[in-house]
Order: sequence, then structure tokens, then C-alpha cells
Amino acid sequence: MSILVVGSVAFDSVKTPFGEREHILGGAAMYFSVAASFFADVRLVGVVGDDFSAEHEAVFKERRIDISDLERVKGQRSFHWKGEYGFDLNVARTLDTQLNVFADFKPKLSNVARQANYLFLANIQPALQREVRQQLNPRIVAADTMNYWIENDRKELLETLKGVDLLIINEAEARELAGEANLLKASRRILTMGPSRLIVKRGEYGAVMFSDSSYFAIPAYPLEDVFDPTGAGDSFAGGLMGYLAATNASDEAAMRRAVIYGSVMASFNVEEFGVDRLRRLSHEEIDERFKTIKEMTHFGDSDAPRRSFLAGD
Amino acid sequence: MSILVVGSVAFDSVKTPFGEREHILGGAAMYFSVAASFFADVRLVGVVGDDFSAEHEAVFKERRIDISDLERVKGQRSFHWKGEYGFDLNVARTLDTQLNVFADFKPKLSNVARQANYLFLANIQPALQREVRQQLNPRIVAADTMNYWIENDRKELLETLKGVDLLIINEAEARELAGEANLLKASRRILTMGPSRLIVKRGEYGAVMFSDSSYFAIPAYPLEDVFDPTGAGDSFAGGLMGYLAATNASDEAAMRRAVIYGSVMASFNVEEFGVDRLRRLSHEEIDERFKTIKEMTHFGDSDAPRRSFLAGD
Repeated sequence: MSILVVGSVAFDSVKTPFGEREHILGGAAMYFSVAASFFADVRLVGVVGDDFSAEHEAVFKERRIDISDLERVKGQRSFHWKGEYGFDLNVARTLDTQLNVFADFKPKLSNVARQANYLFLANIQPALQREVRQQLNPRIVAADTMNYWIENDRKELLETLKGVDLLIINEAEARELAGEANLLKASRRILTMGPSRLIVKRGEYGAVMFSDSSYFAIPAYPLEDVFDPTGAGDSFAGGLMGYLAATNASDEAAMRRAVIYGSVMASFNVEEFGVDRLRRLSHEEIDERFKTIKEMTHFGDSDAPRRSFLAGD
Repeated sequence: MSILVVGSVAFDSVKTPFGEREHILGGAAMYFSVAASFFADVRLVGVVGDDFSAEHEAVFKERRIDISDLERVKGQRSFHWKGEYGFDLNVARTLDTQLNVFADFKPKLSNVARQANYLFLANIQPALQREVRQQLNPRIVAADTMNYWIENDRKELLETLKGVDLLIINEAEARELAGEANLLKASRRILTMGPSRLIVKRGEYGAVMFSDSSYFAIPAYPLEDVFDPTGAGDSFAGGLMGYLAATNASDEAAMRRAVIYGSVMASFNVEEFGVDRLRRLSHEEIDERFKTIKEMTHFGDSDAPRRSFLAGD
């Protein structure tokens, strides 16, 4: 099964407590597609400028990601994000955002793109997400969003959510979208907005998945060195959607495994700057980390220990 | 197997976004012993004043907790803590602390107390913890501490830790004790200080357990309403030590189950003010919540999905 992703391909200048990089390949759709490409065919819809060179194209080529629908705008520059992270790597501080070609981005879908079975709407303007979504009839539509749209484009976002199956957002976004501090209550509210499942990313604390009839929670894979959290959420979504597309399953068991694959891909992604780690990742490493997460969360059944005197109570 | 706990029995005045209570029974040793009493015999060493009445004694009696070693000081009042929680229920703000009888607390252990097989050193001055510990030769010694001792009594604390098997502290304390922001690195440092296992409480994000050769992580039981987080950590320790004492096991599988029972007891404790919820808790409810945590964290083995073109790579 094939995946279509629409979103940003960008250049990032990132500073973390462990170093900094200037103008490295970034963007939600880029991280997503590289992560998903380990599992399934991926086609990317986005826009770049003149600064997108053969060197950057190679990242997609080596992962066999189809960028025929990546629009190139002559005489303009690509979307650029500059940010830094402190020791709390869960929070990015944006220093500069230059939309450039992204300011007038109108996703153009080829006929092949419209045949995709799985669609990921990365974090872009909700109206654009909906415009893309309406041109396809995929098996599963997943979407991300951010606080900016929740606060400033709520009406459009709510309209878009009606056509989304899986909403993949972080904890603060879930609380803000629902207007409810308690996550369990927030999830219940969000599940009335359209999505049949809500997947909440919690950074170093893992992820939780809600549906009307199930709750699944996992801790994150423990890392000694998180070099650059940029793209963690999109790598997560890429692993998750990649797994679903690879197995073409969407039952609870498959969804749970998909969340684990998402966590695995995110955990690798943050180990190095940009997409460096994913570029040289192997399937053996992915399988091994899946098994480690399984092992580190496993425990036996309850053996119902009771204090003896209570037997007669 | 029997458990000895040394620590505070206190009165708390607590305010949360959901209500407030004045002068209710509290204290680390109280919460610990009530939670542990569901699994094993518990004896408490502590001190109270005149304000500890028959009504408060009844809490211990109904749970068959042995308070023969609870010292009563005439003409003085019990330890009193006044605090409040905002919507971030992970952080308590102390408004007032009156040590009262606790200021001159010198734990006195009876001969029976010295026979205990399991010892929990609740959060008190590290030198006192050590003084108690040296009078026993238990199978397992567990201890808690807090930022105050880590900052102001570090030398004594490090000396005490040499005689501790399980250190049960929260995430900020672990980081501060180790002087290391990364939890994995912090745990490695702490495991050189004496304890063979470090159990880190993460509030609504669950708990992790480290040893030289293992890592275990669980999310917390999801709650819709957290009324009062006071005593969560001590209920956790009580469930954990209670389970170990009930089964008299300390292998990895038993330790993992113990962490789950700890989480279960903490999750019940925070559902109501003070110890109200634990007082009317049943073994059926405990077993059910254990099973729910098992179910909500379970996922199948990796089926190693790979994108087909890569087979030939």
C-alpha cells in the first residue's frame, strides 16, 4: 500500500545544548517520509525553492521516496526555520520563521497521488489539509496540527478534523484543542470531532492512544543522548503510518504495534541532528529496538497477593 | 513477612482545585502503612501529639497496622503540613510546616520491630534513617528522601544510601541527587551509591525502575479525576513493599509486579482526599486495576514489516 504525505520540506538552523547546525534539510513531510519509507512506498507533495539542490534530493532518492509532486519554485527560497532547545528538550524556541515558497503553497496532486491508500496531512493550514483530503479516498487519513491553528484557525481545523481518522498531536495540543486539562476527558471530547483515534505524543514520556473502546500507553525508549528533537513527532507519524500501510491492517493490535514503530523511529531520529540517523538506519536496528521496548514494558499477570488475615473478612 | 516503616504520621491541611480539607490524617508512614497493609503485616514507628485521637487510631486499627511503636507525646501537637496544588497536580506548594513533636523525633524500636524482614525508611532526616536501619537486618531496605536533604544534608544522605537496597524517589530528586539531567545517566550514577535498584516516580507519567542489568517502565493508570495527590508516593512505596513482603520474592519479575501494585495503590489514593479512598478499597478493585494496567500496556511481538524493495538491498 502506498502513502501520500503533504507538508513542509524545509531548511532548519538548529541549536541544542549539544551543538548546532545551519541550514540542514528539515520539514515535517521530509521527516515523515524518510521514516515511513522503511515500511512502505511514499509520495510527497510539497514545495521548495532554488536552494533545494541535488544533495538534498539524494536524501529522498536513497530512500526511494517519490518526489515527482514536489513543486520547485524558481527564484525563491525554501521554507526556513531557526530554533533552539534548552536542556528541557521537549520545548523548542523559535528564533525565526521564513515561509518563503511556503507562503503561497497550494498542494497540487497528480493522478497517481490521488490513488494513495494512506494519507498523512502534516502540520499545515487546516484549509489546505482539507483541500488535499477531499481529492482522495484513502483507507486511512492521519493528521497533525499545532497550537497556532488551534488558537487562530479553529473553525477551519474543526471542519478538517471531520475527515480525519487518526489525529496525532502532542499533549499540550490535545489539552488546548479540547479546552480540558485532564487528558482522558480531553480525548473523549476530541473523539467527537471526527477522528476515531487520538494518538498523543508525550516526548520523553512516550505516547498514548485513545479510541472509543480502548486505551493504550507506552513509555518512550530511554535515550542517553538526545541531540536534536526536531522531527521527532513526524518520524513518529512516519513509523506509525508506514507500519499500517505495510500491513494494511487497522485493528487494535495493529494500531498498537504501529504506535511502537512510531516510537522506535522517533527514538532513532532524535539521536543525531536532522535526518542523519535515519539515513543510515537498518531494519535490524528497528526490529531490535521494537523488541527492547517490548521487553522493558513486559510484566506478568496479577497473582492477587493478599494479606492472610483478610481471607476470612 | 512483616514490614517496618519509620516516618511521619501527621495532620495535613490541603487545598486542591477540587476542594479543601483541614487537619486530616496524613504523613508518609501513615500512607505507606495503609497501602502496604493490604498485602502484609505492617508495624509503624513514629511520633504523634495529643491531637492524635481515637478517631485517627481507628484508621490503623481497621487496617490491622501495629502502632505499638507509635510514640505519644503529651502536651504537644503532631506534625502539621499545610499545602496546596494548582492544576498541575504534580507540584505541591507548601504554605506552612509545623514540625511540633517531629522536631525531636528519635525513633525507638521495640524488640519485635527489630525482627521485621522488610524496612521502609520514609522521608525523614538521613541520619535518623540510618540509625533505624542499623538496628535491623532486613531482607530488603527501601528508602525515600527529598530535595531538602539532597541539598542540605548530602553527606549524611550518601552514608545512609550505602545501606539501602531500593531507592524510591521522584524524577526531579533523581536528577538532583545524581547531578545529571539525563535520567538514564542519573540512574547509573545513583546505582553506584548503594541501592541495587532505583525506582523513579513520575506522577501522571508512571514509573521507571533501573538496576545494573534491567530497565522497566510503565505509564500511570489514567484517571479522570485526581482530587488530592498527597501521599501518592508513599502509597506507591506501600503497594510495592507490601507485594514484596507478601511474596517474599525479589527477582526481576517480582520487582516488576511490585511496581505495578505500587502504581495501583497510588492511583486509588489520589482519587479522594487523604486516605479516604484506601480505607474503603477492596482486593477485587486492586486486582482489577492491575489487570487493566496489563491490558492497556500490552502489544504483540514485532512482525518485522519491511518495504519489499529493500529485501534485495
